[in-house]
Amino acid sequence: MSADTTKMWGGRFSESTNEFVQRFTASVDFDKRLYAYDIQGSKQHASMLTKVGVLTQDECNEITNGLAAIQVEIEEGKFQWSQELEDVHMNIEARLIELIGDTGRKLHTGRSRNDQVATDIRLWLSDQIDSIVQQIDDCQHAIVALAKENVATIMPGFTHLQSAQPITFAHHLLAWFEMIERDRTRMLEQKERVLVSPLGSAALAGTSYPIDREFTRAELGFTTTSRNSLDAVSDRDFAMEFSSTSSILLVHLSRWCEEIVFWNSSPIGMITLPDSFCTGSSIMPQKRNPDVAELVRGKTGRVVGNLNALLLLMKSQPLAYNRDNQEDKEPLFDTVDTVCDCLLAMTSLIPEIVPNVDRMLELARTGYPTATDLADWLVRNGIPFRESHEIVGKVVALAESKSCELVDLKLDELRSVHSAFDETVYQVLSVESSVNARNHVGGTAPDTVTAELARITKLFGARAES
Amino acid sequence: MSADTTKMWGGRFSESTNEFVQRFTASVDFDKRLYAYDIQGSKQHASMLTKVGVLTQDECNEITNGLAAIQVEIEEGKFQWSQELEDVHMNIEARLIELIGDTGRKLHTGRSRNDQVATDIRLWLSDQIDSIVQQIDDCQHAIVALAKENVATIMPGFTHLQSAQPITFAHHLLAWFEMIERDRTRMLEQKERVLVSPLGSAALAGTSYPIDREFTRAELGFTTTSRNSLDAVSDRDFAMEFSSTSSILLVHLSRWCEEIVFWNSSPIGMITLPDSFCTGSSIMPQKRNPDVAELVRGKTGRVVGNLNALLLLMKSQPLAYNRDNQEDKEPLFDTVDTVCDCLLAMTSLIPEIVPNVDRMLELARTGYPTATDLADWLVRNGIPFRESHEIVGKVVALAESKSCELVDLKLDELRSVHSAFDETVYQVLSVESSVNARNHVGGTAPDTVTAELARITKLFGARAES
Amino acid sequence: MSADTTKMWGGRFSESTNEFVQRFTASVDFDKRLYAYDIQGSKQHASMLTKVGVLTQDECNEITNGLAAIQVEIEEGKFQWSQELEDVHMNIEARLIELIGDTGRKLHTGRSRNDQVATDIRLWLSDQIDSIVQQIDDCQHAIVALAKENVATIMPGFTHLQSAQPITFAHHLLAWFEMIERDRTRMLEQKERVLVSPLGSAALAGTSYPIDREFTRAELGFTTTSRNSLDAVSDRDFAMEFSSTSSILLVHLSRWCEEIVFWNSSPIGMITLPDSFCTGSSIMPQKRNPDVAELVRGKTGRVVGNLNALLLLMKSQPLAYNRDNQEDKEPLFDTVDTVCDCLLAMTSLIPEIVPNVDRMLELARTGYPTATDLADWLVRNGIPFRESHEIVGKVVALAESKSCELVDLKLDELRSVHSAFDETVYQVLSVESSVNARNHVGGTAPDTVTAELARITKLFGARAES
Amino acid sequence: MSADTTKMWGGRFSESTNEFVQRFTASVDFDKRLYAYDIQGSKQHASMLTKVGVLTQDECNEITNGLAAIQVEIEEGKFQWSQELEDVHMNIEARLIELIGDTGRKLHTGRSRNDQVATDIRLWLSDQIDSIVQQIDDCQHAIVALAKENVATIMPGFTHLQSAQPITFAHHLLAWFEMIERDRTRMLEQKERVLVSPLGSAALAGTSYPIDREFTRAELGFTTTSRNSLDAVSDRDFAMEFSSTSSILLVHLSRWCEEIVFWNSSPIGMITLPDSFCTGSSIMPQKRNPDVAELVRGKTGRVVGNLNALLLLMKSQPLAYNRDNQEDKEPLFDTVDTVCDCLLAMTSLIPEIVPNVDRMLELARTGYPTATDLADWLVRNGIPFRESHEIVGKVVALAESKSCELVDLKLDELRSVHSAFDETVYQVLSVESSVNARNHVGGTAPDTVTAELARITKLFGARAES
Repeated sequence: MSADTTKMWGGRFSESTNEFVQRFTASVDFDKRLYAYDIQGSKQHASMLTKVGVLTQDECNEITNGLAAIQVEIEEGKFQWSQELEDVHMNIEARLIELIGDTGRKLHTGRSRNDQVATDIRLWLSDQIDSIVQQIDDCQHAIVALAKENVATIMPGFTHLQSAQPITFAHHLLAWFEMIERDRTRMLEQKERVLVSPLGSAALAGTSYPIDREFTRAELGFTTTSRNSLDAVSDRDFAMEFSSTSSILLVHLSRWCEEIVFWNSSPIGMITLPDSFCTGSSIMPQKRNPDVAELVRGKTGRVVGNLNALLLLMKSQPLAYNRDNQEDKEPLFDTVDTVCDCLLAMTSLIPEIVPNVDRMLELARTGYPTATDLADWLVRNGIPFRESHEIVGKVVALAESKSCELVDLKLDELRSVHSAFDETVYQVLSVESSVNARNHVGGTAPDTVTAELARITKLFGARAES
Repeated sequence: MSADTTKMWGGRFSESTNEFVQRFTASVDFDKRLYAYDIQGSKQHASMLTKVGVLTQDECNEITNGLAAIQVEIEEGKFQWSQELEDVHMNIEARLIELIGDTGRKLHTGRSRNDQVATDIRLWLSDQIDSIVQQIDDCQHAIVALAKENVATIMPGFTHLQSAQPITFAHHLLAWFEMIERDRTRMLEQKERVLVSPLGSAALAGTSYPIDREFTRAELGFTTTSRNSLDAVSDRDFAMEFSSTSSILLVHLSRWCEEIVFWNSSPIGMITLPDSFCTGSSIMPQKRNPDVAELVRGKTGRVVGNLNALLLLMKSQPLAYNRDNQEDKEPLFDTVDTVCDCLLAMTSLIPEIVPNVDRMLELARTGYPTATDLADWLVRNGIPFRESHEIVGKVVALAESKSCELVDLKLDELRSVHSAFDETVYQVLSVESSVNARNHVGGTAPDTVTAELARITKLFGARAES
Repeated sequence: MSADTTKMWGGRFSESTNEFVQRFTASVDFDKRLYAYDIQGSKQHASMLTKVGVLTQDECNEITNGLAAIQVEIEEGKFQWSQELEDVHMNIEARLIELIGDTGRKLHTGRSRNDQVATDIRLWLSDQIDSIVQQIDDCQHAIVALAKENVATIMPGFTHLQSAQPITFAHHLLAWFEMIERDRTRMLEQKERVLVSPLGSAALAGTSYPIDREFTRAELGFTTTSRNSLDAVSDRDFAMEFSSTSSILLVHLSRWCEEIVFWNSSPIGMITLPDSFCTGSSIMPQKRNPDVAELVRGKTGRVVGNLNALLLLMKSQPLAYNRDNQEDKEPLFDTVDTVCDCLLAMTSLIPEIVPNVDRMLELARTGYPTATDLADWLVRNGIPFRESHEIVGKVVALAESKSCELVDLKLDELRSVHSAFDETVYQVLSVESSVNARNHVGGTAPDTVTAELARITKLFGARAES
Repeated sequence: MSADTTKMWGGRFSESTNEFVQRFTASVDFDKRLYAYDIQGSKQHASMLTKVGVLTQDECNEITNGLAAIQVEIEEGKFQWSQELEDVHMNIEARLIELIGDTGRKLHTGRSRNDQVATDIRLWLSDQIDSIVQQIDDCQHAIVALAKENVATIMPGFTHLQSAQPITFAHHLLAWFEMIERDRTRMLEQKERVLVSPLGSAALAGTSYPIDREFTRAELGFTTTSRNSLDAVSDRDFAMEFSSTSSILLVHLSRWCEEIVFWNSSPIGMITLPDSFCTGSSIMPQKRNPDVAELVRGKTGRVVGNLNALLLLMKSQPLAYNRDNQEDKEPLFDTVDTVCDCLLAMTSLIPEIVPNVDRMLELARTGYPTATDLADWLVRNGIPFRESHEIVGKVVALAESKSCELVDLKLDELRSVHSAFDETVYQVLSVESSVNARNHVGGTAPDTVTAELARITKLFGARAES
């Protein structure tokens, strides 16, 4: 008799598995998370085997009922997971055999763990993507709600962290909207590549049973069927692509958080965050730290780290299946959890951001923010832009030497730099006129932003209906 | 007067740029590669300014002709690139002013280098993607051609680098086809996000001129117009996404190359590579090394490295533009070049792969590759799969002890393990019957592979027409 | 009164922490692993405060006894960890106050969680490094033991996965020894940078109490004291450096595992692995897969992923402390666990590798492995090496055309390529003479390897004594 | 005759190298950078061959003179590099044969390109490390010089980008000193692992010539000799380790640059950077952007990217040599260049940082920075720290409600929170008393910093002497 009677594949083996090896190679501690998808897949696999005549209807019913009972056991916390049984698949199959006997031994006919695990994880990931897309929607709603209240709130626009040109706060927020709108599109597009049914690919070459792959594809909700069995069991593109998509999303959130931390920095003071989203210091009683934003920013590292883990994992792996691939799950699970948490963090935090409108305006007016408008005024008065730029550079140097803003310069001071200046120039030097002037598509003008908000609201409506 | 008269932005500055700083911050050595797109963008920007009345038609003509002359200078190698002028944009604009005088100073009206460089690089990248998609097509044709010749070539299918089940060589090659078919789809999908016109976003907030963004979008061949100026100048998603897509593609190629190196390994000998794709050793006269495959495999590192460079670059960057972003170009350029070279390498190498058909068959017959078929035979004879698996495990142990293959066991030897065996069992033990039996969608049977090749040929036809 | 009475820093706060925020920002679920080091650090901090007169000896005793009691509670599984109390530090301090009252409130005098957590993790990491160094030693012993049995076992040496020159198996194994010998050195060297005491740096600037940093340094077993309080609380070099060192170590193990999988591949068959280190297939009864080696190879990904997580985490973080840093622990913990598991896996696996000596020799003799020796023979007979190389290339082509090995060529066949050949040439064509000839330092000759093994045995002795 | 007569290894080959393959596999475009080390290595190899009797003294002289002539040709730009000759080694050897004939054909006796390239790159890297260590020293001198002028300059110390406690600017700068002091140590330590002579390892197994490895080791300036030929040709640890060390260094610089950009941000205004280290905007005439700091921050990405490229490259590579390794050079070269440029950038920039002392002090006094001192005062007056922390939290809330700083609260206001307060409390509320109080090792007090500067000055002296 074989030495390893617990293992489902022990027939050929003469020594039992080293204990450390058992722990080291077991995946059940983390892959049990897939149990519902594993059971769902097994049920439909049994139905298909019945449809093609490999199982009888009675056998199918026994299996289906047995699996349903196991699902209840798991969800009630009564299921005994065993490392000795390696993974979620073998744990459930072994329990099925315990419950229903020999018929249970027929379930694995015409499949392998290689196609089974690919089926499970694709179904699971598809659901996770749906949930992430919903969370992106929620976050976009939060952004838009805050933007709607701040269409006319003027703040400094920064480049190089230097005051550059005045913008509206709503306009800045809608930049955030656009960033995750791309993430949303990427998430949805990749779903097509996730929802490909590998079931029926068996170990690597397909199976000798007269299986009906279209049946299981349709019943399990896959969009298409994989065209090549070797590819189907070796493909982990979905994990790499989802991790890439998530990395870009987290990079976006890290940029927002960097801005939130900066705006909230005590010398800047452009926004206030509520106590409930800050934490204190164990030593400094005055501290109210924007920890949530900092943590989201920090969590970018782990998501990109997981992407790298997967790229290294897959690099140079020969087809078809290698045990290395067991390492695909933990990074993927961690990325999904982190993305969900971070999106929820932002969706919760954004409505709580209180712009300090006066401080924003004060800073928006500082640092010659309408110098470009001044150059544009010169252009409209016939001076080529490059020359205007040079002239305004000198005007700025003059203002700097007088420690005043452009608007504070007297006309004769302006004219000391260039004779083209006249009284009408003051019309373009206010931050209000500057933002109002940028009223083309994509511009920061309140009117433009209002129109953009209307477009987005309509988009939200269309999405809600679909 | 200003200290820095060469610089186009020198008006305000009182000291000239430190010499090291000039070299350190200049990008012209690498971004001059974008010159054609920069000129194309400038021409259309000038046309748009004319359309909205900022330039006269004569001015527009002067600019357009000047730019055309510069393009000729560059392409004839006569253009003097200058580090002092920082980048491709300033080099071309300065030369334009040199050539046509004051009118040249009007070109930069209503734009900034921030939207200009984003325009250039998006146009460039879109063309590169087209070219990569074409190269993927070419590579797929090479794969399919080799597959067509090897529909009935039987080789060992490996899992865990252990002989697992016999497969057809064509089937294995079509797994490669599927892998880059996904890459192709990803490349094409992301193009939609590349072809978004940022022109008109100016520095970060839009511009005070009555620009017509739709005009430049259409003339430059963009699909859509960016909706938010801050996002438009700060967005480098296209670089990160393209690098992700390319990393997955290279991971695929690294897997093929790992297989080629393995198949070609002297003790394996399943394929022969031609001299023209191998290189020798400086010391060992007998060596003929599969260097091309090894190099492609190695180049995976640089493409993933470039992806990381970009993710780190963008992480935590506040909006709108920071000079960090100048670092986006070199990794992107290097990734495009590497992807193109590696695809070309594979497209050139694949037709040269000579399968050693006899050796493939010999190896396919070794290592009990039809053990699964034997278990399936038992199932069809009424024994539950798990029990069949256990029985066959013992049959394998028996064969191992006799140093023979399954097909070499006598019937009474088989029956010594289980009484269910009869003469018909030998029908499933040949590798030919094993591959023929896997004739469902995705399976390795020659008939199935032939059908799949027909489907793909039709697909190629449809693509060629579109 | 303050809204947040549970929090130790709640005095200033008017709203309680959002529930999601509480979960999102809490670290106790993972950082409780540091409890013993936290308690050790707190005890010595209390002793120091007593030495400098901030606490009385009675207070110190109360605190010390209270902390000892808490350690027992934790180790007996009776301690109630609370997410509301954020982290291991606050959980323990809150329990201390519960147990001993007001005196417990004095423990945090003159320190901050910023220096406290840095103290804890450095102490913990130093112990982990000691344990890893011990595991490297164990693994080296396993390598050396296998090498000792295989000093004269001849195998093919590969370059480009092509048979290159014959080598001894012991020599190959000692290459593995050298690889982790460098890892060992790196691990030990970095310990000096881990064992720097940050205690006393407080939040970022030091403290106004008359602390004695030398006292806590010495009592806690640190080697040196940090010289700058800002650096001390913001420095996470130890985490990045340890992760780099670990990444290189795992890259080494991945290379061994690639070789083990290759040697064990069914068509190669150079080694056999025992059943207890292999696992089977759920579908293919004949499979015996080298899963342990594959998993170690796969785990390289997660360790490099963790390194990236940390590099991204720290990039661009302004001093002194930001909450991002809470994300340093999980990657570090996971890396330590993975390194330990993978080293144990290799140390367990290596003694179980059974070289198939005859197969090794058969392969070593195949593929013209002594072509270099033949060229060297020509050189010794007066022909310049480059010319010899060319001549031997032709000899190889001749043998290839006759499907024989070099040793099988007749003298007149050799002389048909070049007249210099005579009978003595056959002395250099055997694989035995080839390996014996490479008897300089670092060469593969059995005598050289024996001497090397003696050197290493002496080294082991010296280590064991120290 | 052989088809490929240019190639030095063409003897066996029957087809010439595909033209694309030639370009794709050639490395001479980048590895020619190693020419001086290649020539140096070849000269000593020839001397060694002479010492052991393989070459005559005349032959050695011919070779040495020929190589010297080639070095002159290269340095005068007259050398014809050829892609057809693949790499720096073959280019130089082919030219040597051209120059001196048959004797040149003897140079490659007893070595392979595998040990040759490892020799070249290790010698090159060792020199680069020396140069980087010198640049770190220079940068440290720049930091210390600026610190010496700012021992008493008070600035806000930040945690979470919130004003936390006042610190001295010199103290902050010395945190930077400490960061790169660790980098310096790491750079120096790894040099021991770089300076290991691989020469004599030949292709993978050593050589059959009676070589004297100790001779070449000593003549080339290596510290030790590699102990195993397989390891010596396959080891790229030095590249991975140097890239890790460099990545940590760049992470440090990115943190400084983040701070410089923040301090220089127009609303913060804590420092001014000179025009010569800033660049302007093509559109906004007022801009003076801290581009140098931003670029250094951005370049962190490429260095970490290069590290990843190398880790991926080496992962799972079987011994001994594979062509993948050709990909080790470009990332390594780019990392060395980037590290050197970035260190030079910081060394040039730091002396130009002008602290705006008044603004620093103003910000240091804002945001309740002495709240911790107030809590410490309560502790010294008998209140346990945790209770003090709570009391001060309420004091801060009171000040906040009155929009004043702590120092502005009247005694009866303080006493309304807790009766323990008396007049002496005002002594600890000034930022000056706060920094002065932190006068232990590592603290921010001017006296402590002065002592630390003295210690460092002494250290510099010792280094200069050694």
